[in-house]
Amino acid sequence: MRRLALLATALFAACAHAAPPATRIPPSALEAAAQLRERALADDTGWKVTESLTTEVGPRLAGSEADARAVAWAQAKFRELGFDRVWTEPVTFPRWERRSESAAVLGPHAQPLAVTALGGSPGGTVEAEVVRFPDLAALEAAPEGALAGKIAFVDLRMRAARDGSGYRDGGAVRSRGPSLAIRKGAAGFLMRSAGTDSHRVPHTGITRFDEGLSPVPSAALSNPDADQLARLLARGPVRVRLALDCGWGGQYTSHNVIGEITGRSRPEEVVLLGAHLDSWDLGTGAVDDAAGIGITMAAARLLKQMPQRPARSIRVVAYANEEQGLVGGKAYAERHAAEAARHILAAESDFGAGRIYAFNTGAPEHARAATQQIAQALAPLGIEYAPGKGGPGPDIGPLSARGVTWAWLAQDGSDYFHLHHTADDTLDKIDPAALAQNVAAWAVFAWLAAEAEGDFGSAAKAAPP
Amino acid sequence: MRRLALLATALFAACAHAAPPATRIPPSALEAAAQLRERALADDTGWKVTESLTTEVGPRLAGSEADARAVAWAQAKFRELGFDRVWTEPVTFPRWERRSESAAVLGPHAQPLAVTALGGSPGGTVEAEVVRFPDLAALEAAPEGALAGKIAFVDLRMRAARDGSGYRDGGAVRSRGPSLAIRKGAAGFLMRSAGTDSHRVPHTGITRFDEGLSPVPSAALSNPDADQLARLLARGPVRVRLALDCGWGGQYTSHNVIGEITGRSRPEEVVLLGAHLDSWDLGTGAVDDAAGIGITMAAARLLKQMPQRPARSIRVVAYANEEQGLVGGKAYAERHAAEAARHILAAESDFGAGRIYAFNTGAPEHARAATQQIAQALAPLGIEYAPGKGGPGPDIGPLSARGVTWAWLAQDGSDYFHLHHTADDTLDKIDPAALAQNVAAWAVFAWLAAEAEGDFGSAAKAAPP
Repeated sequence: MRRLALLATALFAACAHAAPPATRIPPSALEAAAQLRERALADDTGWKVTESLTTEVGPRLAGSEADARAVAWAQAKFRELGFDRVWTEPVTFPRWERRSESAAVLGPHAQPLAVTALGGSPGGTVEAEVVRFPDLAALEAAPEGALAGKIAFVDLRMRAARDGSGYRDGGAVRSRGPSLAIRKGAAGFLMRSAGTDSHRVPHTGITRFDEGLSPVPSAALSNPDADQLARLLARGPVRVRLALDCGWGGQYTSHNVIGEITGRSRPEEVVLLGAHLDSWDLGTGAVDDAAGIGITMAAARLLKQMPQRPARSIRVVAYANEEQGLVGGKAYAERHAAEAARHILAAESDFGAGRIYAFNTGAPEHARAATQQIAQALAPLGIEYAPGKGGPGPDIGPLSARGVTWAWLAQDGSDYFHLHHTADDTLDKIDPAALAQNVAAWAVFAWLAAEAEGDFGSAAKAAPP
Repeated sequence: MRRLALLATALFAACAHAAPPATRIPPSALEAAAQLRERALADDTGWKVTESLTTEVGPRLAGSEADARAVAWAQAKFRELGFDRVWTEPVTFPRWERRSESAAVLGPHAQPLAVTALGGSPGGTVEAEVVRFPDLAALEAAPEGALAGKIAFVDLRMRAARDGSGYRDGGAVRSRGPSLAIRKGAAGFLMRSAGTDSHRVPHTGITRFDEGLSPVPSAALSNPDADQLARLLARGPVRVRLALDCGWGGQYTSHNVIGEITGRSRPEEVVLLGAHLDSWDLGTGAVDDAAGIGITMAAARLLKQMPQRPARSIRVVAYANEEQGLVGGKAYAERHAAEAARHILAAESDFGAGRIYAFNTGAPEHARAATQQIAQALAPLGIEYAPGKGGPGPDIGPLSARGVTWAWLAQDGSDYFHLHHTADDTLDKIDPAALAQNVAAWAVFAWLAAEAEGDFGSAAKAAPP
């Protein structure tokens, strides 16, 4: 009776809304997921992969010599882990290189300042008086020409938060600050790092200069150096020498590296697990994003080892050059736009190595129940269902814009911006147990998505304007 | 009756041991100490002085341009704080300078390593295979010539401890490692930093090369870089390029800067409070040792503000060049050796800015009771009497060897070696409340020592051989 009633309800819902049939995950898949979860927690493949990438390749700036080594490493690692298909797809972009960087206070309080060039900054040496602004709004409010020949210093302290929400404002200083400063006449740009630590390791990251502006040397100070500069400015005028040797030069072709576990019954449909292979050059990119590479590779490998492999294919994409503008993510979306409907769900692990605390998908109503079923299978890992929250990871954004439904496995990022884009982003910062919890969550999620009866709403869309 | 019995006991003790009369602190001085303690806890002079030195002078390597600025700063600050007498005493030493430093793994795992030259290292570039040793004993056990043309790497991880005892082994690697390596034929020396943090900020510090050896470039790796090098070496041979531009050149004359609060009744007798004015060049020397300068200057200033100033003089010595061999401490001891008996007690604040947890003096039996009285007055600050423990601070050592009795105010150094001799030694690491607790302890100690009836055993001794 109960079954009949449920069936009637489902049929009614389907007719009333002309919606596709409700997607459900079969009980046998849920049972297998419980075993998979325990097996994953005891597996150290995620750690080993992360250790291998950060140690053997080390820093891997897009377009650097290490970029090619990372691509070779990823292909070899996919094969070593038993992926059925391994291939690459070219991704071309302009090369930016950091050669040297320094800054110093001049005059009676002469002392060095720890700085790092923002990605995309031109080289050059500027000696000028510094003008401090507490935030972007204050810089924006400065009169035209007020900064003629001066160095603008935006001194916004970024707030730490589990969900990384402080990065919205901190990141905006980096992306919008230099152009705003140039419009006011500035000859150079300094910012307090978009970071939450208290170490002399400034945070880099890409910036962009608006069309028609002449870029100026732009760099970030570590938090203690921003404190110091602010204290000196409180005493009177301060002149600083900022010397950057860096800049754009030539085109480079890297590759998205893709490994796939072939599905047993619907091999042409894929669950996409993404992470990015490149890193900034200052650290070894452990939390950004070797951890993501380790988590997704290890999760997919566990699915190949299931008594029966997943119905759909599991595709792990190690994206090229996320850091300088989601270049790999855009290239993948472009190339695979016509196959959007065959990407059942896509998610990226790119927020460090902290434990996952929430799950959701961007699926429409007919797949909410299946989303909730996945969340229930994740609950023993300390993960809650978070309807109405989340979104696609950075490299999944372009794919999502082309109609692929995203899934969201939210990591605790309380410490992420202590390390993000700094020299301190190294392997020792990763807790192997937290990494294994991630692998378990991704394995369970990918397995259930691959086993689901019905879709999650992916359907090809025209390219956004 | 009780008084008579005590007197008899004291007389008996005096006769039996032919010892000087017992030193005691009068009750009125102890009462005043309780008020002083509370006043000190509410005073922010220690913080302000520390902020001023680290901000306005910044890093102040002995013999650098900033050394002279630090000497001028200290004289001005003593005067500003109302010290009665301010003077300098010259201290001459050879200059060592750091210009640039870098290291990189070569070959298939090419990547930069964060290093810093050890103080006293020669410059030079070495490209060579690295041989790892877990500790000094293993290096010592290597056969003669085993390291011919190679880079020795001593990979000892320093242990954190409240009393800093892990530095004994960590510091020994720095002081003895390079000479040991040279004896085995090494062309270069690398060590895991003598430090307990996990940041890419290597720890410098002075090293010495034994007579008759040809010094080789010697540097410390940050802890994450030592981890990385050890992981790479576990995979096979590793070649490293170590490039240092640094070295000795010329003599420099700096100054011990001395400020004194003149005693009301025995002005020729002094209680000496020391700290060192120089720092390493990588950070702004906040915990090493601007904090000590702030603590001792602030404590002495509080004594000048007492309703009646202390019986003995309070002498604050801001020592020159502690870092490269206690040069200022030795110069002071030499110059004032004949006045040992007039230095009633001497102590140095040079172990950061953590709270003081223990107190003792090196006084002989007749001043134990007075030592204990001081400890009792410090007890409300969370400080315990630690008979049988402690010793002179680094710059007090030479004075102690000439017969001056030391006092020991033990700071909690659990975090000290996170920062010691690194770029991370900056003001933000200091807790103003902990600093005020230090000032209170030093003020109470100095006050009671200056008010004591009787001495603490200081008596001139011949120079040690």
